[in-house]
Amino acid sequence: MKLNDLLKENSQWLRGTGANADIVISSRVRLARNLADVPFPHKADPKQREKVVTTVLRGIENCELLKNSLVLNLQELKLLDRHFLMERHLISMELVESRKSGAVVISEKEIISIMINEEDHLRLQAIQSGLQLMDTWRLIDQADTALGKRIKFAYSRDWGYLTSCPTNTGTGMRASLMLHLPCLVVSKQIGKVLQAIAKLGLAARGLYGEGTEPSGNFFQISNQITLGSSEEDMIDNIERVGKQVVAHEENARKFLLARNRKQLEDKIFRAYGILQKAQIISSAETLNLLSSLRLGIDLGLVQDVNHNVVNELFMLTQPAHLQKIEGVELSPEERDVKRGDLIRRFLK
Amino acid sequence: MKLNDLLKENSQWLRGTGANADIVISSRVRLARNLADVPFPHKADPKQREKVVTTVLRGIENCELLKNSLVLNLQELKLLDRHFLMERHLISMELVESRKSGAVVISEKEIISIMINEEDHLRLQAIQSGLQLMDTWRLIDQADTALGKRIKFAYSRDWGYLTSCPTNTGTGMRASLMLHLPCLVVSKQIGKVLQAIAKLGLAARGLYGEGTEPSGNFFQISNQITLGSSEEDMIDNIERVGKQVVAHEENARKFLLARNRKQLEDKIFRAYGILQKAQIISSAETLNLLSSLRLGIDLGLVQDVNHNVVNELFMLTQPAHLQKIEGVELSPEERDVKRGDLIRRFLK
Repeated sequence: MKLNDLLKENSQWLRGTGANADIVISSRVRLARNLADVPFPHKADPKQREKVVTTVLRGIENCELLKNSLVLNLQELKLLDRHFLMERHLISMELVESRKSGAVVISEKEIISIMINEEDHLRLQAIQSGLQLMDTWRLIDQADTALGKRIKFAYSRDWGYLTSCPTNTGTGMRASLMLHLPCLVVSKQIGKVLQAIAKLGLAARGLYGEGTEPSGNFFQISNQITLGSSEEDMIDNIERVGKQVVAHEENARKFLLARNRKQLEDKIFRAYGILQKAQIISSAETLNLLSSLRLGIDLGLVQDVNHNVVNELFMLTQPAHLQKIEGVELSPEERDVKRGDLIRRFLK
Repeated sequence: MKLNDLLKENSQWLRGTGANADIVISSRVRLARNLADVPFPHKADPKQREKVVTTVLRGIENCELLKNSLVLNLQELKLLDRHFLMERHLISMELVESRKSGAVVISEKEIISIMINEEDHLRLQAIQSGLQLMDTWRLIDQADTALGKRIKFAYSRDWGYLTSCPTNTGTGMRASLMLHLPCLVVSKQIGKVLQAIAKLGLAARGLYGEGTEPSGNFFQISNQITLGSSEEDMIDNIERVGKQVVAHEENARKFLLARNRKQLEDKIFRAYGILQKAQIISSAETLNLLSSLRLGIDLGLVQDVNHNVVNELFMLTQPAHLQKIEGVELSPEERDVKRGDLIRRFLK
């Protein structure tokens, strides 16, 4: 498999399967791990960083979950390709910008991936479509167990897994749900819901995690605290809160359909109309309009487009994806035109 | 012919024929006339007003240009029907609101019409599609001559035709062109053009004449002064100025197509997309979006809709027309929904 092969198929987590897949886009669990005998990445010298890469790559050999994986040396990748991987949620902004040695391992269908030399030596991630956080946890736990047999991780009996930033120490786990909450936003209940989430010890963030603004009505909720309870308990908690948020969004949808059906239809169909015809369109506008279109499909109001098309558009209309599809670097203005062309082709 | 029959067919002037019909929607000439032996309408008592109506109606008998005309007693019409006639440019706002006796005579295809007991006893109007003001003048001149043989008009050798308001005295003529100038508006040249028009002694107004704001990029230009030169000279002047404005709009279109083609296409196709899908839409928004769509057709960018459809929509989406089509009175909110339904049917 090569990097460009990723373009040919959508990530598994965008397939729209799994429980509550209308509202829960994806379930994701990532684990922070570090090699016991090497300084954390920001303290490691080039040689030590290099050692981390070779140790991890040797460690994944014969790991069933990671067979046929794509292994990419990030220093060898163009900036555009690194952005492309970030848009697919396979690497972080930190790795996009890093000039030091690092790598990423990507399993088939992009379910499991490992960032090497990000903030920690390893960031193992599993991501799946819909509300299936426990199952996703089990997957990444298996990968972690397999790797742990071949790599000695930094671990303290008192603290658990040691991490570069103390906020990850303990389980090293960050589990999150990506939720699409257009009706909580439009009915202005989202603020209250996010406050309640915070009170329950969870964090709510935008599309690309920490430090990103919510856009397109997408929200990530995840655990704030990584130690003090077992991974299963934490995931159980997030799943329970997630289900409550889903129920709130469902109620908001029912309410709006009952009380403001026409207004809702108007918003949805106008979005659809603009997407079908716009010649110049930014990523931000695209995200918001696709969010409305997706809601229209969820509610059965839009019947001639399916979820897969919208999911694919969410991915492909991102700046780096557009440029990968076109095969050339494009200015923002050129992208806005190509984005319009692409969307029109998909929604014809 | 009955009032409701008007709904079945578009007015001749909306057919989009005649010279420069892409930019010049219509050519209109109206003549103000008064009976010599009756006070002007606002000074006339009910009996005298009644007498005006019967005198004029008798006057039009056997007038070839007005045979098979629809004659409507305005006092017998509902407010909705009077608004409907105003939207078709057949009566003025003054007659919509008047509770006194008045009538309107409407020729086949709505080319010629006569308002009775508006500001003057008679307001004769001819309106045709495209740039054909001289021809339109000849039509209304014929009707005027025919009526003049049977009705004694108030006329002074020194002043010409006497009118209720001195600004109409002399020829009693107001000749106007309705122009669609989207590219002069978007390129911000319209202010300069309107100033130049004013310097040439012509007035520029909105869609429904005096006191109305320009909307949908429609502008009426007409003579300010009604005496001091012959009708032919005045019309010649308006036609000449009109042709210059047309040339400016054509240049602006060429310029925008050459320099900002994508932006122009974007505006046009977004308008088209919204019109095709909106569920709730106001008259003002409709007018602006139809203006863009019309431009798209003019420029050959939109090929699956023709001028007639857009022209018909301009007419039918107006509030009173919508209610006549639905056969019931509708609140503004209900109209916005029905308007969306109607537009979607037409643009499917």
